[in-house]
Amino acid sequence: MKVTVWNEYRHEKTDEAVAKVYPNGIHGQIESFLKEAGLDVKTVTLDEPEHGLTEAVLAETDVLVWWGHIAHNEVTDEVVNRVHEYVLKGMGLVVLHSAHMSKIFMKLMGTSCDLKWREAEEKERIWVVNPSHPIADGIDEYIELEKEEMYGEHFDVPTPDELIFVGWYEGGNVFRSGMTYRRGNGKIFYFQPGHETYPTYYNKDIQQVIINGIDWCRPSKRAYPAYGNSQALEEIKNGQQPV
Amino acid sequence: MKVTVWNEYRHEKTDEAVAKVYPNGIHGQIESFLKEAGLDVKTVTLDEPEHGLTEAVLAETDVLVWWGHIAHNEVTDEVVNRVHEYVLKGMGLVVLHSAHMSKIFMKLMGTSCDLKWREAEEKERIWVVNPSHPIADGIDEYIELEKEEMYGEHFDVPTPDELIFVGWYEGGNVFRSGMTYRRGNGKIFYFQPGHETYPTYYNKDIQQVIINGIDWCRPSKRAYPAYGNSQALEEIKNGQQPV
Amino acid sequence: MKVTVWNEYRHEKTDEAVAKVYPNGIHGQIESFLKEAGLDVKTVTLDEPEHGLTEAVLAETDVLVWWGHIAHNEVTDEVVNRVHEYVLKGMGLVVLHSAHMSKIFMKLMGTSCDLKWREAEEKERIWVVNPSHPIADGIDEYIELEKEEMYGEHFDVPTPDELIFVGWYEGGNVFRSGMTYRRGNGKIFYFQPGHETYPTYYNKDIQQVIINGIDWCRPSKRAYPAYGNSQALEEIKNGQQPV
Amino acid sequence: MKVTVWNEYRHEKTDEAVAKVYPNGIHGQIESFLKEAGLDVKTVTLDEPEHGLTEAVLAETDVLVWWGHIAHNEVTDEVVNRVHEYVLKGMGLVVLHSAHMSKIFMKLMGTSCDLKWREAEEKERIWVVNPSHPIADGIDEYIELEKEEMYGEHFDVPTPDELIFVGWYEGGNVFRSGMTYRRGNGKIFYFQPGHETYPTYYNKDIQQVIINGIDWCRPSKRAYPAYGNSQALEEIKNGQQPV
Repeated sequence: MKVTVWNEYRHEKTDEAVAKVYPNGIHGQIESFLKEAGLDVKTVTLDEPEHGLTEAVLAETDVLVWWGHIAHNEVTDEVVNRVHEYVLKGMGLVVLHSAHMSKIFMKLMGTSCDLKWREAEEKERIWVVNPSHPIADGIDEYIELEKEEMYGEHFDVPTPDELIFVGWYEGGNVFRSGMTYRRGNGKIFYFQPGHETYPTYYNKDIQQVIINGIDWCRPSKRAYPAYGNSQALEEIKNGQQPV
Repeated sequence: MKVTVWNEYRHEKTDEAVAKVYPNGIHGQIESFLKEAGLDVKTVTLDEPEHGLTEAVLAETDVLVWWGHIAHNEVTDEVVNRVHEYVLKGMGLVVLHSAHMSKIFMKLMGTSCDLKWREAEEKERIWVVNPSHPIADGIDEYIELEKEEMYGEHFDVPTPDELIFVGWYEGGNVFRSGMTYRRGNGKIFYFQPGHETYPTYYNKDIQQVIINGIDWCRPSKRAYPAYGNSQALEEIKNGQQPV
Repeated sequence: MKVTVWNEYRHEKTDEAVAKVYPNGIHGQIESFLKEAGLDVKTVTLDEPEHGLTEAVLAETDVLVWWGHIAHNEVTDEVVNRVHEYVLKGMGLVVLHSAHMSKIFMKLMGTSCDLKWREAEEKERIWVVNPSHPIADGIDEYIELEKEEMYGEHFDVPTPDELIFVGWYEGGNVFRSGMTYRRGNGKIFYFQPGHETYPTYYNKDIQQVIINGIDWCRPSKRAYPAYGNSQALEEIKNGQQPV
Repeated sequence: MKVTVWNEYRHEKTDEAVAKVYPNGIHGQIESFLKEAGLDVKTVTLDEPEHGLTEAVLAETDVLVWWGHIAHNEVTDEVVNRVHEYVLKGMGLVVLHSAHMSKIFMKLMGTSCDLKWREAEEKERIWVVNPSHPIADGIDEYIELEKEEMYGEHFDVPTPDELIFVGWYEGGNVFRSGMTYRRGNGKIFYFQPGHETYPTYYNKDIQQVIINGIDWCRPSKRAYPAYGNSQALEEIKNGQQPV
């Protein structure tokens, strides 16, 4: 399983508080625990040519992990369209935290992907509501985070294929915080925690969920379906020249 | 639309605190606001012959509303099976609060329907997560109840057809508090609030949701599908004697 | 309920066979049976200024019905984005037949929306698989069409919120032919039949399903959810000037 | 992964045509290809004590495969309740063909599980409608069976968690032929093909789907959720004696 972690990598370079939590970037920390879990991981970031998401890189990626926040609009449409094509062809996509408003997630969802938010150092509890789902494997009834940014409903996304986690926040909000979607031949997992100023990606349970999510998003072992004129498709299949 | 409200009607007769909140029984209060909404309502209770759920009553019911708690096991299997048949044939069913463990709901769900609970006079907020659903019509972003019994995840029910509300509790729990299910030709709406010691069914928003839920559960205008031997079914349809 | 029927209106002007079936355009025929059903209907077409979908028209539309085929790309992105906004704000959308590859449907779905097709004058049977759904009200176990264009799986759309109809074709294919989706505050119904050379929209059952679909897509009676900074939102709600 | 294959094993002993197709019983043939696939398999049948489904056997079963037809009612309620408990606790269940009306499947579904059927030696095509689902891994766009019993809609089961296959029949019917359900901590896969007089379980694609289905149903690695009085549960967790 080949995993590519994409990070915007801006907060870490300009905000001391973030740099202190993630000295090697958020991507560096994610890479670190995925490697420990035995995955084949590479990282790429926004400021690389083609944001690091060249044809060559995507062709060698089974699952792409995405973290972005303040520079969603700097990702070119060309790269977004390329990633979109790869997801429809079968590449998995794990979308983290503020990437809910990344161009790629919005394009795949078809909605505004907007939500309520609050930075108030508040406690979050992420409850498992789908106990037999492999993405919850190894997780207790809930994960407690001492401090997270509040993300609250209404979260303007399509009804998920599967709802796995629901978040509770001290300040009175709830959030559908772990959800899967199938789009084309690709599988998508959105997971809410991971504000840049908190050490969320050092939490063992959060790491486990991301590892599970990557595993769940692995490409299927099927040819991409054939679309279009059915007669022509059958002629091609039978080795004939379609008319 | 003909609505029948079924209530266990035991707490109100033995517990003074409950009797004070619901002097005419929980069914009486539900009947009262449904009538105000222009619905044709009757009430029946556990201690009536056949628990009030005779063939005659069910045959005249479009939607059945159910509240029960301490006497689930006193409902006979015969009556449960009869109601089950009616739901499969198209009668709507609105299941309230502690009726999550009623025999009829458990039979329709196929699971334990168990959950976590706590009586701690805590605040609940019921958030809308499905903003275009007619059951949420007229409701603001959330309904706030000063005091409710906590019902918490994991709630052991099948994945709902539609998740409409998610509850937040002061004490740190969340709950899928409004959900729809289709079973056979019937539609089912489960709605969590309504502990017997709190005046929940006097709350205008809670009333609105129950009215909306009844409307959503209205029977469809279709014949019950024909099941069995396909040839025989076609012969019957064509006016022939099946072989 | 105010319904606007949008039609590309090209086949009818250039293809005699189509003009013979739909002398007043496909939109004309749809308008005709919707009016008979008592709906307040207007029609607009591609070649009108802004394709007839001005702010003024959309502001007065509860549900938009869309038929297009050979000129999807002539619909400007500006108009597509405007319709998209209206759907997210609550306007219903009924997508017919070849409009599965209209820009607006693709934008809302986030997938290729591609499928297999065949024009072979073959019989279709549209089976009801969701018997209690109001969109199937009044419909027998299946609708039979003597001739329809085959649309076959795999249909590259997201898992529907509700699957209502499944199509069977003489030539060996199946298709999820009636499906609902919720996006933002809006409801969407896709319905497969309606090839331009067949008199599909004169079929009473097909008409009934479209009428039911429009009714199901009616806007909800709720304010659009508030998104963004939660503290600021509360201050605005309380009549304060947000900081 | 420990798999137990349960078979009614009656047709094979009384009907020569069936015995010819399945000389070692349907369970024998299923066992054979599962063993080839490297699974740890045992078989049990209806006429064994406790139908072979003792506590000891179930305690050593990760996934149970079930085939039954003419003797559903001979399975005792005691054994059905035991299997039900195991499914809710996490045991996987693969339900084949005519087991759609087994007591265990009906209990888990809560509906009549009825359908239309026809024995007419007709061709079936089983189309993949969920291309990224692991249960479809290795399968082409469809599986073609020269002869199968027709199972047609309406199939009276709850909306599935996931619809993976849709069947097409020569005679004009369609069927949701591969579906998943989650109930409690357990996962369930229903798969339609497998009439006793046809060599369906010798078909490599059918075998692959069953193998994939077993893998998908594997138990999760989580403790069973704790239900009941929340304070008492926390006290137990903290090593206290609950009051």
